[in-house]
Amino acid sequence: MLEKYRLNEKRSFSLADFDPEDTAGIAGKEDIEAEFEALKDKLKEHQEKLFAGKTNGVLILFQGMDCSGKDGVIKKVLAGLNPQGFRAESFKKPTADESAHDFLWRAHRVAPAKGSIAAFNRSYYEEVLITRVHDLIDGKEASKRLKHIGHFEKMLSDGGITIIKIFLHISPDFQLRKIQERMENPEKLWKFDPSDLEERQYWKAYTKAYEHAIKATSTKRNPWYIVPANNRWFRDYLVLRIVESALDSLDLSYPEVDMSQFRLAAGINESSK
Amino acid sequence: MLEKYRLNEKRSFSLADFDPEDTAGIAGKEDIEAEFEALKDKLKEHQEKLFAGKTNGVLILFQGMDCSGKDGVIKKVLAGLNPQGFRAESFKKPTADESAHDFLWRAHRVAPAKGSIAAFNRSYYEEVLITRVHDLIDGKEASKRLKHIGHFEKMLSDGGITIIKIFLHISPDFQLRKIQERMENPEKLWKFDPSDLEERQYWKAYTKAYEHAIKATSTKRNPWYIVPANNRWFRDYLVLRIVESALDSLDLSYPEVDMSQFRLAAGINESSK
Repeated sequence: MLEKYRLNEKRSFSLADFDPEDTAGIAGKEDIEAEFEALKDKLKEHQEKLFAGKTNGVLILFQGMDCSGKDGVIKKVLAGLNPQGFRAESFKKPTADESAHDFLWRAHRVAPAKGSIAAFNRSYYEEVLITRVHDLIDGKEASKRLKHIGHFEKMLSDGGITIIKIFLHISPDFQLRKIQERMENPEKLWKFDPSDLEERQYWKAYTKAYEHAIKATSTKRNPWYIVPANNRWFRDYLVLRIVESALDSLDLSYPEVDMSQFRLAAGINESSK
Repeated sequence: MLEKYRLNEKRSFSLADFDPEDTAGIAGKEDIEAEFEALKDKLKEHQEKLFAGKTNGVLILFQGMDCSGKDGVIKKVLAGLNPQGFRAESFKKPTADESAHDFLWRAHRVAPAKGSIAAFNRSYYEEVLITRVHDLIDGKEASKRLKHIGHFEKMLSDGGITIIKIFLHISPDFQLRKIQERMENPEKLWKFDPSDLEERQYWKAYTKAYEHAIKATSTKRNPWYIVPANNRWFRDYLVLRIVESALDSLDLSYPEVDMSQFRLAAGINESSK
């Protein structure tokens, strides 16, 4: 089922080929509720082994238009993980110090160590998205950066880091409904950002920039996933399946401990048995 | 004069082709003392412009066998720089946290920002030198890392960082004399490290590893310099010339300030003149 949403080679594609309403034929939330909880438990188990073994690390990065649910999916899918070994990082407007460094600097600083999982809410991909859409960089610079991103990701994965790249795919109508909800609901008003309305005008330009970036950086080892996100329950379910499956395929196990060492230390050596 | 010591393409070379005793025909320290001071002043001027303009940054990394004078050259050539905009970083045995990350992580964290100069005493190159010599990694892994280093350096220089790579070239005899000096001189004894004597046995393996690394990462943009270092005064002089010349070629200038803004703010606008 996951292959349908996975892009693992540098081929042209169109986001229009993916339906934001898609639920993979599943009728509703009720049908996957039990599986969802079981998958979360499995994920926790994987994390414990990851933390104990320290042979691998995991980077899950979330990109998507405003209101696509990046905060929501991190909360729903990853909130139960052991915080000692899991960290969510949010990429806002760069500080002066961050801007003074190369565009990958601040992301590399918070890249996951072996034994840990990091979730990036937005990421270094913004450096070829928002910057490109607003013409802060030209196409040539964007291509150069995408190459650097490819090398950077290959270097991370050579160092034992699994990279999972998620694009949360919503429709413009869905976004508008969300913005309206935020404006009208006092409890959601704090999330409303007037610039979201402005950025909406650049929908097509963002779509193009995303298609370009995703095409340029999809590889077998570090694929992108296009996650239909108009239905929150399906979005969460699919992301959980993607993450659980990626960790499962690492075939993690607890490190073996040579008990003879401990026996020795405790004065219980083999001959005294 | 500098070309003779510069490697700016991926071609085979032998360290044996460079004479550690070489002084470029200069008879002695007296002949360059005045020029040395003048060059230091120029370097300080470059740094001030670099710091003010914040369009470029500089990374100077020093590699070389034990006792080749990495500490010494940093002190002699760079100590006069404005500390606000200059930092020396020393790469010792990686900590547990550093080892848990990819091999470029700790270096990237302390990479220079635009406006600043960083001197690396040893560097990420150790990850293909000491590790390779002691068989902690195989040749395939070393080649992979060298590729990642090339990409990393290209990314840094695309981001406005000039990278100057210095190999301090000494002879085995010179090293032995230095080790003996350290052992016999109470004021230098603190620098004596018994492992230096042990590492001496690997001289040939280090030479091979250096030649391989330097060959693989010499480019027009990010060249290596082989600096003859048996004569300290020539070593310092040559490094200073290399660094000064690299900054000079950036053609730095103080940023222009639009004075009309200040006149306006002070109530002195053009019409009131």
